[in-house]
Amino acid sequence: MVGKGVRRIDALEKVLGKAKYVEDYFFDRMLYIRLVKSTIPHGRIKKIDASKALKLPGVAGIFTAADIPGINQVGYALPDQPLLAEGKVRFHGEVVALVAAEDPDIAEEAARLVKVEYDPLPAVFDPLEAMNSKILVHEEKGSNIAETTKVRKGDVNKGFEQADVIVENTYRTGHQDHAYLETEGAVAIPEPGRITVIGSIQYPHLCQTITSRVLGLDLAQVRIVQASVGGAFGGKDDMGPLVTAKAALVAYKTGRPAMLVYTREDSLTSHCKRDPAIIEYKSGATSDGKLTAIQVKIILDSGAYANRGPFVLWRATMHASGPYEVPNAKVDGFLVYTNKVFEGSFRGFGNPPMQFAAESQMDELAEKLNLDPVEIRLKNILKPGSLTITSQRLDSSVGIGEAVKKLAEVSDFKKKWVEYRKSEGVKRRGIGIACGWHGISTSRGVPDWSNAYINIYKDGSVVCETGICEIGQGTHTAHAQIVSEVLGIPIEHIKIVGGTTDAPDTGATHASRGSSIGGIGVFVAAAKLRERIEKVAAKLLGCSTEEVEIKEGRAYRRGDPDKYIEWRELVKKCYEMGVEMSATGYFFLPKGTFDQEKGQGFAYPAYSYVVNVAEVEVDMETGQIKVLRVWPALAAGKILNPTLVEGQLEGAIAQGLGYALMEELVFKDGVILNANLTDYVIPTVEDVPEVMKPVYVEDLYQYGPFGAKGVGEMALIPTPAAIVNAIYNATGVRIKELPATPEKLYFALKKMRGD
Amino acid sequence: MVGKGVRRIDALEKVLGKAKYVEDYFFDRMLYIRLVKSTIPHGRIKKIDASKALKLPGVAGIFTAADIPGINQVGYALPDQPLLAEGKVRFHGEVVALVAAEDPDIAEEAARLVKVEYDPLPAVFDPLEAMNSKILVHEEKGSNIAETTKVRKGDVNKGFEQADVIVENTYRTGHQDHAYLETEGAVAIPEPGRITVIGSIQYPHLCQTITSRVLGLDLAQVRIVQASVGGAFGGKDDMGPLVTAKAALVAYKTGRPAMLVYTREDSLTSHCKRDPAIIEYKSGATSDGKLTAIQVKIILDSGAYANRGPFVLWRATMHASGPYEVPNAKVDGFLVYTNKVFEGSFRGFGNPPMQFAAESQMDELAEKLNLDPVEIRLKNILKPGSLTITSQRLDSSVGIGEAVKKLAEVSDFKKKWVEYRKSEGVKRRGIGIACGWHGISTSRGVPDWSNAYINIYKDGSVVCETGICEIGQGTHTAHAQIVSEVLGIPIEHIKIVGGTTDAPDTGATHASRGSSIGGIGVFVAAAKLRERIEKVAAKLLGCSTEEVEIKEGRAYRRGDPDKYIEWRELVKKCYEMGVEMSATGYFFLPKGTFDQEKGQGFAYPAYSYVVNVAEVEVDMETGQIKVLRVWPALAAGKILNPTLVEGQLEGAIAQGLGYALMEELVFKDGVILNANLTDYVIPTVEDVPEVMKPVYVEDLYQYGPFGAKGVGEMALIPTPAAIVNAIYNATGVRIKELPATPEKLYFALKKMRGD
Repeated sequence: MVGKGVRRIDALEKVLGKAKYVEDYFFDRMLYIRLVKSTIPHGRIKKIDASKALKLPGVAGIFTAADIPGINQVGYALPDQPLLAEGKVRFHGEVVALVAAEDPDIAEEAARLVKVEYDPLPAVFDPLEAMNSKILVHEEKGSNIAETTKVRKGDVNKGFEQADVIVENTYRTGHQDHAYLETEGAVAIPEPGRITVIGSIQYPHLCQTITSRVLGLDLAQVRIVQASVGGAFGGKDDMGPLVTAKAALVAYKTGRPAMLVYTREDSLTSHCKRDPAIIEYKSGATSDGKLTAIQVKIILDSGAYANRGPFVLWRATMHASGPYEVPNAKVDGFLVYTNKVFEGSFRGFGNPPMQFAAESQMDELAEKLNLDPVEIRLKNILKPGSLTITSQRLDSSVGIGEAVKKLAEVSDFKKKWVEYRKSEGVKRRGIGIACGWHGISTSRGVPDWSNAYINIYKDGSVVCETGICEIGQGTHTAHAQIVSEVLGIPIEHIKIVGGTTDAPDTGATHASRGSSIGGIGVFVAAAKLRERIEKVAAKLLGCSTEEVEIKEGRAYRRGDPDKYIEWRELVKKCYEMGVEMSATGYFFLPKGTFDQEKGQGFAYPAYSYVVNVAEVEVDMETGQIKVLRVWPALAAGKILNPTLVEGQLEGAIAQGLGYALMEELVFKDGVILNANLTDYVIPTVEDVPEVMKPVYVEDLYQYGPFGAKGVGEMALIPTPAAIVNAIYNATGVRIKELPATPEKLYFALKKMRGD
Repeated sequence: MVGKGVRRIDALEKVLGKAKYVEDYFFDRMLYIRLVKSTIPHGRIKKIDASKALKLPGVAGIFTAADIPGINQVGYALPDQPLLAEGKVRFHGEVVALVAAEDPDIAEEAARLVKVEYDPLPAVFDPLEAMNSKILVHEEKGSNIAETTKVRKGDVNKGFEQADVIVENTYRTGHQDHAYLETEGAVAIPEPGRITVIGSIQYPHLCQTITSRVLGLDLAQVRIVQASVGGAFGGKDDMGPLVTAKAALVAYKTGRPAMLVYTREDSLTSHCKRDPAIIEYKSGATSDGKLTAIQVKIILDSGAYANRGPFVLWRATMHASGPYEVPNAKVDGFLVYTNKVFEGSFRGFGNPPMQFAAESQMDELAEKLNLDPVEIRLKNILKPGSLTITSQRLDSSVGIGEAVKKLAEVSDFKKKWVEYRKSEGVKRRGIGIACGWHGISTSRGVPDWSNAYINIYKDGSVVCETGICEIGQGTHTAHAQIVSEVLGIPIEHIKIVGGTTDAPDTGATHASRGSSIGGIGVFVAAAKLRERIEKVAAKLLGCSTEEVEIKEGRAYRRGDPDKYIEWRELVKKCYEMGVEMSATGYFFLPKGTFDQEKGQGFAYPAYSYVVNVAEVEVDMETGQIKVLRVWPALAAGKILNPTLVEGQLEGAIAQGLGYALMEELVFKDGVILNANLTDYVIPTVEDVPEVMKPVYVEDLYQYGPFGAKGVGEMALIPTPAAIVNAIYNATGVRIKELPATPEKLYFALKKMRGD
């Protein structure tokens, strides 16, 4: 089962339209919630006048910060963010009040009738300006710098002294919206003694924590269940709690079920985006291409709240080197508040901007040293025994070197790269390579763990409960494969119930940990049961437990498959013999120490590695860029399900392409001017390149289920750099600011030609 | 916590009307189901014509046996019962088809429009007649005797030879309807990949088994959740699966949520009742009052299907002696099919009729031997070391002797008994005593087990999942007390989620096993967690785990309560340190062997004992009987919650009183003539006697949680005998047929007076 391209267990329900998304739910006496949002980017709330709105027939209530029975605090990394604005608003689109009514139209109309009076305050939008501004987004903090990070490894001055070449550039990246098919939403149902919230979420236990805090309840009084999720990409990790808490607040106050579904405009104006970054990057290398030092300054624009920003920044900081050995490194990171929509989790976290910079630098170094892009990378690439930028020793499962070599081969990189450099004419081709690495799961000595609960029913069918969410990535299918493999039974008899606080806290479905880290608990619980069942099978078969084979729903003595016991019969016997047929699975990952001051130590339990080669065609006259094909390679341990992984690769490359070439939020005075999917352009099927057969280097991870590491975010990370490097290969123009729109390239080409 | 009269954890939701019963649920596009029932007691189904009904606007479908995708078999003890009649009907009121429509009125009308043509067959209604009749309820069985049971202990002939007195009587008892406040019901909701059914049930995993069988699905594809239950008393153990399967069938076939709620008429005509019994009882004793032998013949009228009948009969058979030592016993039981509504589980199972007979016999023997009722009982009463009628040695927890003594004392029994015998006049008082015993849980070597799952959330609040249902008895409160006691935390932070197949199979909530046997798994799971947490507490407190005290949400070193760690903090530490905070609890009860042929061996893992003293006032002219007060005594191990137990005692006494004095189903040719609660009379508040402060003999049960045994059914069991013995004490008339209506007593008094 494991390693096979098994069809998704939720394929049919999704294809047939039977999957239930938040908006598909309906409960008797249900209220619909609409948002009253700030119309200014910064200001004090003088008065909220709901009197007119409350008079509208069908309005059930209007709720502001004053109605929160618990604590109006939803900040993730820092306690800086209210569920509903209190005292002041810090960005245009911030939620000030919730309107609940009998139907969504009435709620919408009532929301418009709520009059909020503000005392406007001067606002700050540019992060560089904000770093030294007197305009403070959070006065009580005394500064707009929400968080700083550092890496201090070796001696960078000495490192640059040893360098024969030095390359120094500033890179800029913009916002990116998740643009999921389904916007944010949740429906809360009050029940005796607790409240259940069904949501479009990524981490039920976090939703539970924040919802219970807002309501002033015990965690045990708040039950969270994921609905089918129409795309998440990190955004619903951050937004899940914000919508579950809002829906729950209304349900709690009114005693009625309450549904909140963000409109697309709500989503675009008010939900977190990928943090824009400014990265000043200096790299030094010896004449034979060995990196001697890097010095990096990262400035992330956090928007009005820190949210995940500190972790996004840490991730960027700890991956600043790219997947390379570098003896000397100095990195400084700054997370800066501005009066714009707050930023947050997005596939790749801080890595897409960071690897864009790092991998552009590698090509620049290669250029200066007359090396080809593959050579320079292989000279520095991480391998078993390497020390990372945080001086974490990588003992095993570091297959990126092999991945680079194989991918260069299958894409015929070197030949094309040399050939394309010489090409002429209006339409020119280019090829680019870029690597990426990505620490799996949580970081910096913060413990990580896995958890699951499995119950085998009397007929041998199995339910596995986990907190891990199915957000389109296929994790539940991977989990079912793990159970199937461990127990030796067909996958049809396995039901995965995920994304629920009924299961033990399994951690978030983020950081590419769903199938891998999330799968460990599943593996452990299944293995516990397997062990118990094997004993019974051995007794019935008259052999030792070591000799018992269980496969495809039959248990037999190894080598004697004709004399078997049917799984169903075996389970029945176990029940009769008093064998416990349910088990929890738990695993606490090894954690190291981390020196926060120097940014040195155990940063992540494991890393996945990725390489992309992109081939582009550029129109030298218009600046039009067409990505023709992308070859991806993964060194991410065991590939549990190649079909699912291909899906992830394709999706990530498409999303990376959008980030690299077209997606751009346009702000004016803190107001998003293109808060719709007509003007905020994402790739269509026409833009998506051919994704070639992936290269897998299955360097097993000792703690992963069957050796698996994470794959979900990987292929997005190097996509922008691979494309930009290919553009350079085609045109000789290096784009340092994303998105690399045709317009930008057009002017750059013009400038290059001296027009 | 344990042993305290803690308020029910569901008290508020019930008092405030917030509890959700099946009928309180509503789902979008929900269909309402009504039943098409047989209008004859016995006959072949020639044709079901639904054409007219299907034309009625709003009718969504009509479903018969032919529509069942799985197996049309819901028999519990024997595979003799279809979900929907197939081929023939065997009782008036049997369900032939299900009608589903947009609203209940349309469904009702459509049900009337379904024309079922029958070929009527001769029917048999009297069990004695049925035993030798050529009219067969189930032709394929060749006999109407569904099951026979036997006990063969010692040599009864020799036993009767040794007897100085012999008493021989035939006792008869009638049907009893559970008459719960809420009728049977379930609502099924199709979901992607599975179906959820919310029902008024007593055993979710049984509902799951039968529903999945009918639908042809895996158990893992059927999820059962109990709704709030408005009374169950055993009836919903049997009926739960029948309604969940029916609702699920409609939901499965239509793809829409479907609700079935029995009308009161449906309930009275079509749901199982307490099996009527005919008991021929011969007892022998020596002149000093020691029992030498009993010979008993039990005939139970099973109605059209066996259902639980074989187990009801076994229970009657194995308790035939009453809680007394008897060296020689011969018992023969017969379960007989008739063309009447099928019988089934009811509080006390086979014991209320059996103990009515056995305890009437004891008084008769006492009378003949000139002993008082207390004396003769104490001479024979079971005690540690005794062998039961099945030769099971009772090693411990046999406190009934003490219970009899204490209860006789507090009720001033002997004095009153002597005094009342002499009373004269129209209104006469009488006092009666009766004992009962009741094997807890399942029987005859069939294994029993307990199961639970507990999760401690990060804030220290706790969810405990169990399959045990809250059916009004307060079991979930008892479970919360167990968790509270074991973990040392306030009960407010504990949420019990019960009655769900999300939990491991915990067995049924019947046989008085909910709090006791069901509580073992809860105890084990909590104890596992306690042990893990203690280790962390010991580390933090710098002491040994043995010294750790956790009480009222604080952990401290024993004797040093001022230096403590708050529970919440302790749990947080556990999470940080990688301690698994969820656990399953499992316990497989010791099982013995049982010889089915001789009815000898290990019958039950434990017995609870009960004694009632009833004081009555009889009108010698009208036969009117007023039960003035009842003193109950329990020897049922640790009393986990005296308030809850008092509730159980009062309810059981009321229900026993109804059974003893008034409840009577009137049949004519298999048709129930009083299928409504106006004509089927149950006790009102005016009829209920004063229940005196109970006597508890807390003889701990080694495997029960904190030593608890079952209590739920107990006080019903001896109530009829205590009342009838009291009537005899008052009047000199012995009633041998229940109910002992005023009419019956009036004629008996008349006869006694020779009128």
